[in-house]
Amino acid sequence: MKPLGPIPPGFEAIDGELAIGDTPVSDLVGRVGRTPLFVYSRERIARRFAELRAAMPGRLKINYAIKANSFAPLLEYVSSLADGLDIASGGELEMVRATGFHLSRVSFAGPGKRDEELEAAIAAGVTLNLESENEAERALAIAERLGETPRFAVRVNPDFELKGSGMKMGGGAKPFGVDAERVPALIQSIIAAGCDFRGLHIFTGSQALSVDAVIDMQAKVLDCADRLAREAGVILPKLNMGGGFGIPYFPGDEPLDIGAVGAALEDRFETLPETLSQAELFIELGRYLVGEAGVYLTRIVDRKDSYGETYLVTDGGLHHQLAASGNFGTVVRRNYPVAIASRFEAEPDEIVNVVGCLCTPLDRLADKAHLPRAQAGDIVAVFCAGAYGASASPSAFLGQGPAIEMLI
Amino acid sequence: MKPLGPIPPGFEAIDGELAIGDTPVSDLVGRVGRTPLFVYSRERIARRFAELRAAMPGRLKINYAIKANSFAPLLEYVSSLADGLDIASGGELEMVRATGFHLSRVSFAGPGKRDEELEAAIAAGVTLNLESENEAERALAIAERLGETPRFAVRVNPDFELKGSGMKMGGGAKPFGVDAERVPALIQSIIAAGCDFRGLHIFTGSQALSVDAVIDMQAKVLDCADRLAREAGVILPKLNMGGGFGIPYFPGDEPLDIGAVGAALEDRFETLPETLSQAELFIELGRYLVGEAGVYLTRIVDRKDSYGETYLVTDGGLHHQLAASGNFGTVVRRNYPVAIASRFEAEPDEIVNVVGCLCTPLDRLADKAHLPRAQAGDIVAVFCAGAYGASASPSAFLGQGPAIEMLI
Repeated sequence: MKPLGPIPPGFEAIDGELAIGDTPVSDLVGRVGRTPLFVYSRERIARRFAELRAAMPGRLKINYAIKANSFAPLLEYVSSLADGLDIASGGELEMVRATGFHLSRVSFAGPGKRDEELEAAIAAGVTLNLESENEAERALAIAERLGETPRFAVRVNPDFELKGSGMKMGGGAKPFGVDAERVPALIQSIIAAGCDFRGLHIFTGSQALSVDAVIDMQAKVLDCADRLAREAGVILPKLNMGGGFGIPYFPGDEPLDIGAVGAALEDRFETLPETLSQAELFIELGRYLVGEAGVYLTRIVDRKDSYGETYLVTDGGLHHQLAASGNFGTVVRRNYPVAIASRFEAEPDEIVNVVGCLCTPLDRLADKAHLPRAQAGDIVAVFCAGAYGASASPSAFLGQGPAIEMLI
Repeated sequence: MKPLGPIPPGFEAIDGELAIGDTPVSDLVGRVGRTPLFVYSRERIARRFAELRAAMPGRLKINYAIKANSFAPLLEYVSSLADGLDIASGGELEMVRATGFHLSRVSFAGPGKRDEELEAAIAAGVTLNLESENEAERALAIAERLGETPRFAVRVNPDFELKGSGMKMGGGAKPFGVDAERVPALIQSIIAAGCDFRGLHIFTGSQALSVDAVIDMQAKVLDCADRLAREAGVILPKLNMGGGFGIPYFPGDEPLDIGAVGAALEDRFETLPETLSQAELFIELGRYLVGEAGVYLTRIVDRKDSYGETYLVTDGGLHHQLAASGNFGTVVRRNYPVAIASRFEAEPDEIVNVVGCLCTPLDRLADKAHLPRAQAGDIVAVFCAGAYGASASPSAFLGQGPAIEMLI
């Protein structure tokens, strides 16, 4: 037996079935007429925002990194709750434009921005988080051609990292941002060139569950921003402190203690140096805001035995759930939280493998899981499916096509 | 420095640039007006088929597993060269239907076939490679309702595997096929139920480069098929012997010696047992037929330095090249064959990292590669991009969208 990841708290059963937003999963599947299906809960997203705002200093603003989930109805809803949006491509700019969100509250980070993406962002008044001196030059030339004053922030590649994070994005040589030691000179040169300087972006990693690591990282980010601003001789109008807040996916993972993170930040905010005293202060979160609000539902098509093991073969799989299958930047595969949604209150009584419908041994949703006995027709739920699911999986693989998505 | 995988033989330069099908890459990019771009070469596919037919016994038929690459023009072209096509979903059935290929020469394997997929396949006269006794029952019920005589083969989960293969699909408990020991009973019951019995499908693994492993596997497949047919008391009309032929991706990989494979198979075919003497004998290949015929071209957007390392940031990345990025079922990342296509004859003179445009540290195309000095505007080629590239990557990730594909 291999343990399953922890199901996010607050999921209840109605008539023995998993309910999402007070609706049993069979009703949700019935509404769209087919599986696989991603269901995202407005209520869970709203609650997450409310808890976060309660825990964090009132001054701290919350940006949503739309790369986590850009399903149009969800993006529209989250944009009503967030203070700003972070995008990573020209494609994402168009998604944001379609929501009617104020483009002056949008920032664009990403190491390979094409000229046409720079142009679209500058014309829209989006803040560019500059990733290199070359990018600054290209963007300035484009702004001059357009006759626009570009909004620039500088993305810093800091000389520290977010300890224990799932993805390190700072500390040592990196393709992201400008090495901290070169940032003051870049700030001075873009201000001299006439840009509207929007401050700094310091993103050090993601998916951290250690409160000490997050507190340490945020303290270092504030110190780093102050030091760079002093060296450049500027007062920062804005600081994007990055994100890094993780969610529990795997057995043994515990939720991040955001109360403690907020209290430590409150302390720091009381003694901000002059360079930061006027700054709008942001954190940038994606997965943390929407990850636990999503559930992936897939129907069991076959139940089969092979040499003593049982396989529940579903109509979903890694083409919608690449990370859950263990094939996206993972060294050792571990089980996500998975349940038999149509028998959510039944006791586990067998060890089974839950696999997808793709003709590849990579397509696994749960290995040697202890679950209630299920049959063809039953519905499997994969939790923590709200971020980096539908959009971060190869939906065209084996001709399967995308899953349905639904915001309730 | 980390070595690069071997560039497939036969790629030449014209005026210093990589040429594909006698056309320099800048002309190819110019034709479509943008990068990233997958270029697939008709000529290379035709040559691969010709070499394979020359090496294999005349009696052996060659199926194309369209999951490797189902880009419509390529599928149409390959279907003109192949003896049959193998599909893995209802979506792939529709792709094949659009080519006008004889559906009676199409087989459908996959562990999670939905009822609507079974119905579409039966109605079209496609052979179902049955993955379980339950699936046989469902398919028989559907055929009866349709008033059709279904074409059934049985997919065997054999009690041996393809040694050293990239993906094992037989040997021990597996979600694919029916355990060998239960196959004779299933053959008898589906024949008794009135199906058109089309033989066996024994697929044991893929991406093997060891000639001994492939010869050993093919011998075991023939023995296994004979044994199961004798136990069932049938003469096999057809045997799909599976695939498994690999291509060199990584440093040190050597091409499979298909001459030796063909010679061994010729020997075996001279002394086939009675159960196989009348059978149509197939191998099923995907990657081997088209993988080396494809090149992914992406333009360098930025060249940047960070703490002593140089990064070439391209406008492509893992959203088109998940496997090359090292994030698809890979434990230890190794470099694919990568080159600066626009300086294909220049001598390597620096160590660089080639990364994609996505804002994630997973997005790498080559680590610490020894390459000619390149600048923004230069074109990078990733070779071996003809299989499991465009369709097996998360093209919607970060709002980037799919690459252009082109058959020349």
